This record gives sequence, C-alpha cells and structure tokens, in this order.
Amino acid sequence: MRFLKSASLFFLLSVLACNTSHLQAAASRRQTIISPEVHSDGRVTFRLNAPNAKSVGVNAQFARGVRPMTRNKSGLWSITLGPVEPEIYEYNFVVDGLQIVDPANSWQKMWIRTSKNLVEIPGKEPMFFQQQQVPHGTVHLHKYPSNSLGVTRGLYVYTPPGYETSENFPYPVLYLLHGMGDTEDAWTVVGRANFIADNLIATQKARPLVIVMPYGHTPSAPPDMRSLGNYAAFEKDLIEDVIPYVQKNYRVSKEQKDRAIVGLSMGGGQSLTIGLGNIDLFGWVGAFSSAVPKSPTIDDLLANAKVNNDKLNLLWIGCGDKDFLFQANLKLIAQLKNDNIKHVAYITEGGHEWRLWRIYLNELVPLLFRAGK
Amino acid sequence: MRFLKSASLFFLLSVLACNTSHLQAAASRRQTIISPEVHSDGRVTFRLNAPNAKSVGVNAQFARGVRPMTRNKSGLWSITLGPVEPEIYEYNFVVDGLQIVDPANSWQKMWIRTSKNLVEIPGKEPMFFQQQQVPHGTVHLHKYPSNSLGVTRGLYVYTPPGYETSENFPYPVLYLLHGMGDTEDAWTVVGRANFIADNLIATQKARPLVIVMPYGHTPSAPPDMRSLGNYAAFEKDLIEDVIPYVQKNYRVSKEQKDRAIVGLSMGGGQSLTIGLGNIDLFGWVGAFSSAVPKSPTIDDLLANAKVNNDKLNLLWIGCGDKDFLFQANLKLIAQLKNDNIKHVAYITEGGHEWRLWRIYLNELVPLLFRAGK
Repeated sequence: MRFLKSASLFFLLSVLACNTSHLQAAASRRQTIISPEVHSDGRVTFRLNAPNAKSVGVNAQFARGVRPMTRNKSGLWSITLGPVEPEIYEYNFVVDGLQIVDPANSWQKMWIRTSKNLVEIPGKEPMFFQQQQVPHGTVHLHKYPSNSLGVTRGLYVYTPPGYETSENFPYPVLYLLHGMGDTEDAWTVVGRANFIADNLIATQKARPLVIVMPYGHTPSAPPDMRSLGNYAAFEKDLIEDVIPYVQKNYRVSKEQKDRAIVGLSMGGGQSLTIGLGNIDLFGWVGAFSSAVPKSPTIDDLLANAKVNNDKLNLLWIGCGDKDFLFQANLKLIAQLKNDNIKHVAYITEGGHEWRLWRIYLNELVPLLFRAGK
Repeated sequence: MRFLKSASLFFLLSVLACNTSHLQAAASRRQTIISPEVHSDGRVTFRLNAPNAKSVGVNAQFARGVRPMTRNKSGLWSITLGPVEPEIYEYNFVVDGLQIVDPANSWQKMWIRTSKNLVEIPGKEPMFFQQQQVPHGTVHLHKYPSNSLGVTRGLYVYTPPGYETSENFPYPVLYLLHGMGDTEDAWTVVGRANFIADNLIATQKARPLVIVMPYGHTPSAPPDMRSLGNYAAFEKDLIEDVIPYVQKNYRVSKEQKDRAIVGLSMGGGQSLTIGLGNIDLFGWVGAFSSAVPKSPTIDDLLANAKVNNDKLNLLWIGCGDKDFLFQANLKLIAQLKNDNIKHVAYITEGGHEWRLWRIYLNELVPLLFRAGK
C-alpha cells in the first residue's frame, strides 16, 4: 500500500512536471520580443515580428517622420534610435502603410476609439513625472451613478500618501478634466498626475490634496466625441453627481477655498465654463491649451469673474506657442488684462501635447490651496 | 472705447469659434470607425481601415480560424459575424499574415509583452460578470514598497459597495492571484472580479469582502515571465509586504478564518503553495486550472493540509476538461480523496480560458467566509 501510494505520487509528479514545462514552453515561444528596449544611454530599440511585410517603420514622437526598420532573415524588424531626451513619447509602427500599435508594449495611450504606444526615457536624475522613491498615493477607480445623465460612469480619484491612515483631514480637492480624445484614465495613464502629486508632496512643494478625474464626455456626444460646446450636461453631472459623491466618500473639504477645477484642451474649456460660472464653488481655476467656451460665452464668464474677482484665488492659463489654440489663448489673456481680472499666464514653447500638460500641472499644483492668494 | 472693446471681443470670439471647429474637424477625421460594433441581436461587426492591405481577417475566439474580411472601395475592411452567445471574447486582426490589435478598440487584454482585443456580447438578461444596476465597489491602485523584493510594485484592491462610509468592519479578505501572462490588472480588466463581487453582494449571495490582487511575478523572473516554480520570492512578498500593507490601510480582519487565497493557472499553483503551506494564515484556498506546485512538492503541501485539515475551511479545485492541465488536476483531486483531505472539485467543460475563471470565481466567492464550513 505504501509502495503503491508512492508510485502513484511519482506518476503524479511526473505529469505535473511535464505540464509545467508545457506552460513554460508556451511562454517561451510567445514571449521572445522585447520592444521597446530602452538603453541606459537613452537610445531605444523597437522590434516587430512581421515576416510577410514589405516595409516596416516606426513613427516616434521624438523623430521626424516614419523611420524605416530593418528586417533580419527570420522576419524580425528592428531599429535603434537616439539617444533621446528624457520624456514620455508616443509612437506606433507603420507596416506596409498601416499604422498599428506595438503588440509587445502594453503601455498605450487609450483614446476612445484608437490608441498609440508610449515609451518613457528616464533621465539620469528622476524627472518630476516619474515614479520616484517617495511615498505613493492611491488611485481609486469608481463606478458612480450619474442621476443627471441617467447612466453609471467611471471616475478616478487620487488620494495622497497616508490618506488611509491620516488624521489630517479634510483635504482640499482638485477636479482635473481630460481632453477630447481622452477618457477618465488619461490623467493617470499618460498625465502621471498621481506621480506628479506624489513628488510635489514628498518635497513639500504642494499641500497634500485629493485629485478627482471624472469622465468629461456625455451620452449625447456622438461616437466621434464632439463633446465640445456641449458642456452643460457635464456641468450638471459634475456639480449634482460627482461632487456630492466625492464629498460623501472622501474626507475632503466642502469649502470653496479648498476646491479647484483644472482641465486640458476640451477640459480646459470645461474648467473655464464651470469654474468661472460657479466661483461660489471653485476658488481656483486652471486651463491648459484650452478650448475657449462658447456657451455661456467667454464674455459672460469674464463678466462673472470680474464681479467675483476677490473670491477667485487663482485663474491660471497655460499654452504652448505652437498650439493651434495659441492665438485664442493670447486673446483670452489680453481680455483678462483688459478687464483687470487677476490671472497667471504661463506661455511656453510647444504644441498641443501631453508633455506640456504634465509640466503645467507640476507648475500649478504648488500654487493651489495656499492661504492669502 | 466701448466700441473697440466689443469689436475686439467679436474678433476674439470668431477666432475661438474657428479654433473649436478645427478641434472638431480633427476629431471627425480621426474618429469615424466604430469597431467592434455589437448589434442588439448578438451579431458583431469588425472594421479596419487598411487601404494598402492585400488580405485582412479577424481571428475571433467565438469563430473557427481567421475569417476573411471584405474591402470596400475606400480601403475599409469589414465583416459581420454571429449572432454570438453572450460572453467576453478575445479577437485580433490579421493583416497580410500579421496579427495586430484593433486600433479602434481600447479594451485589450494586456499581457506583459503582447495584447489582444476584447469584445463583450451582452445577454438579454445581464450576465453575472457584467456591470449591472447595482451598487458598485471601488478598485484601488496602489504602488507599495516591497521590502522583501527591494522594488515598488503595483497592487489592486477591491472594496465592496459602501466600504468608504460603512461601519461593518472588519471585512474578510480574498487574495486573488493572476496567471503567467497577466499583471495585477487582469482580474479586473478581464476577470471582472469587481463586477462579479458587486453582483453577488447585491443579491446577498456573498458576504461583502475586500479582494486584493497583487502582482505575481518577481524581479528574478526573466522577461518571458517564467515565474513558474519560483514562488518563494512571491510568497515572501505576499506575507511580509502585501498582507501587512493591506492590513494597515484597509479595515480588514486579521484572522485566519477571514483570509482566503485563490488563483488561476500559475496563480493557482501559488495559491496551493502559499495557502496549503500556511494554513495558519489562510482558512480558504482555491486553485483554478492550476499549475501544480513543485517546490515545496505537492506531497509536502498535502501532508500539511492533512495534518491541519480541520483548520482548512475550504479547498476548492476547478478545471476544464479540455485544459492542458486537466489530467494533472484530476491526479491532484484523486490524491486529495486518497488522503481524505476535505475539498471541492469543480470540473467543467472548457479549456484554459478566462471564461471559466470568471465562472469559477462566481461559484467560489459565495462559499467563502461562511461560519461552520
């Protein structure tokens, strides 16, 4: 009996060992391509297995145009570019004229209806948007019922390091809005708002804060995402559903002086519309590379800002000089000056791009929720 | 002066309107392809714009082989398949022999080094893994310092509906482990553990619980992810870092009777190894389509389970009859019977696939944390 049991166990172990090897072999066959491979000197190698393709190239944000890749005899295409300045870059592959994402890279910029890959080139010193050796906050993914829109929607919330166990509440809260091509995950997946906040808090450049990242499109918007100019439904959702939900579930302040609204592009238009239209709710307003509101008109909004200028602690406008919205933002800034509305204009080089929005957030957050502003 | 100001404002508004249209036009050019389009009768249409391609097909989990798509004169390829049984399916496109993901679908199964698209076919009645009209829990994304591994790692935590404001604590906690091709997001993005728990809790089939989803690979594992058989480092991380972190930051019970460990495939091997090796910590152990442990041997683990069988509230083994690990699991079950170790064997049709792991989780969670088991 003892012998039989051992024999049976031996057989069992043989089968298991065999099966485990099977799993390993399957993994090995499937998982041999590393792309992108970032080298310590800042060069980066892209690879794609495409034996039947006639031409393969990489379209990287840091290079000009599509750079042709070279095929080896087994059909693996590759190219090494750089060294490249430290930054997060977009790229994709172009195979016989077709743009595709890199199947070996799971980090992608998810647009609502398309996607690009991302690659991060680290600096010798850690950069402000990178995950550093500091305490990290938590990103919370909610599904909340929007009664005003009649649907359940996604919502991301960042809480600062130590929030779960801290007695330092209530926290001030920043409502941070995404752009037209984004969803509620964009400010963390691409914008790195969580790491930017972690790093600012660790160096005591910013007050610990809660960051709420709602979904800015509304069901009435068509699939091509033209929520532009249709801000009223989102404003209702934000004020009647999101803010009460956040205030119920998080230890955040309910005071105007502790509530900010900031957004990029379409979200900048929303933050100007909702922020300047509700200065009793928002003490701090920011707009990055912003679309400028149409309804209510910027005229009406600025009139409200002028009347309530003492309550508006900060109006912060950032834009790059190559942005297609640059002239519009210059006009807005001129108007603010003309109307004697307190504001900060932060003009930089650059276009309509995430690189700048990360920089702007890093500049703006330290200014928020400071007494005497 | 008044006139000038109005004129200036008129000009400003014109520019802004123009720029907003620019943004809309850009969106319109970019965003015209809907893929996949799920029809109300369960059919699904796939579309890909590939004017230069010679052949385009879709490789969908619900169809046999690659189904050729049809090109229209502008170069848009499409096919409508089904009706299809309600389920979440994987698919990808094959363009001139190259497998690519659908650029219009941001829902992807992210493997560590590759990805596939997902499409959900809803049923006439909502299915157990679908987002339903019930209260939703929250998914928390952490970056925690693993002192045992010397790195900062990702960690997902699900809290049940009402956790933020409830007084019903401490909660029982399930440690839920992913497979070899996964990362810590797999049990939510693909496995729908959050919605499965929401639905079970709403219908009072399961006790409200916290679900912790750690990252199961360790830095010593090579890029092809062969963490198989290298469970010791993960066990140390889980017990010395993850569990204390969770117990510090969440209102969870610290008792063995309120702690479960469950995993799929490689994670099943880990849950057997760690769970049966630490019955003083885990009162409930589950293994789905599981790799079977090698070190310590299953022999040693079962010996420990036999000695501590009265403390092991549940040992749950699930496997599909077409899984390449099926024979190994049958052997394990035979061994459990032979050793008189209490267990539940849940054999189903099917292979090594997420469809089954969602079903198994839905079967297992109602059994957890019940008195008298």
